[in-house]
Amino acid sequence: MDWNRYDAGACSVSRTVGILGDRWTVLVLREVFNGVRRFGEIQEHLGVSKSVLTQRLQQLVDDGVLERQPYQEPGDRARHEYRLTDRGRDLRPVLVAMMDFGDRHLSGGEPPVRLLHRDCGQQVHAQLVCDCGHRVETGREVAIAPGPGAEPLAG
Amino acid sequence: MDWNRYDAGACSVSRTVGILGDRWTVLVLREVFNGVRRFGEIQEHLGVSKSVLTQRLQQLVDDGVLERQPYQEPGDRARHEYRLTDRGRDLRPVLVAMMDFGDRHLSGGEPPVRLLHRDCGQQVHAQLVCDCGHRVETGREVAIAPGPGAEPLAG
Repeated sequence: MDWNRYDAGACSVSRTVGILGDRWTVLVLREVFNGVRRFGEIQEHLGVSKSVLTQRLQQLVDDGVLERQPYQEPGDRARHEYRLTDRGRDLRPVLVAMMDFGDRHLSGGEPPVRLLHRDCGQQVHAQLVCDCGHRVETGREVAIAPGPGAEPLAG
Repeated sequence: MDWNRYDAGACSVSRTVGILGDRWTVLVLREVFNGVRRFGEIQEHLGVSKSVLTQRLQQLVDDGVLERQPYQEPGDRARHEYRLTDRGRDLRPVLVAMMDFGDRHLSGGEPPVRLLHRDCGQQVHAQLVCDCGHRVETGREVAIAPGPGAEPLAG
């Protein structure tokens, strides 16, 4: 596939980046994946402004990635916390792949967080595999081909 | 691990997001992964301004993700094209995980591009697996734990 001859916007990477948006959006998602779900807690932990956090959470709700669930502490007014939707949970491999890269290249050999498989206690990674179950270790092993939604450019 | 009690900046996701930067950076990387490597070609294909593209490419070179290689067309001056470094190639799972998500949720059942394993022709995905080789299918199967680089907050 000569990628240059296809519409650059007809691309699932591009569409997903449209949802992940910017740095803050990814960090907000990481908080929720890691169990920090309440507005005030996320805000304090990330050191992000209320207006930025409000906007990013609203966008993630609009995009169907997060949903609000009410909770109420005794003596306090009702508030919301944020939970991943089924769609949102499907973003986990993106964050795990980012974590793998950062662990390998940006943490000086000392990863800050380990993601462990509860069954066996071993670390979890985002591994490229094909539908036959083969592990794909290098780019030379893969090729791109047009799918049904490809949009060839005219000319 | 109570993530809220650790420094939010000591995180490999956060560090990788610092390299991936914004939407344009990811799209430039996608171009290079897909074999579109020359400044003019990337610029035309993405419809990005020269100044934005120059800045993003320079940043990716500075971060050790891309490297410049000279090339020269007959009768033309010497130019550079951009190649992934070994470090850059390690970002492939991030882009494949984004592609998987977009294929599944944002492409109306018609993925634009297929990533195929050359050996068997089957599609390649970013799959969560643990070091024992178990496939991890749901978030309930994973737990986070502090690694050697974790930074507990005071108090």
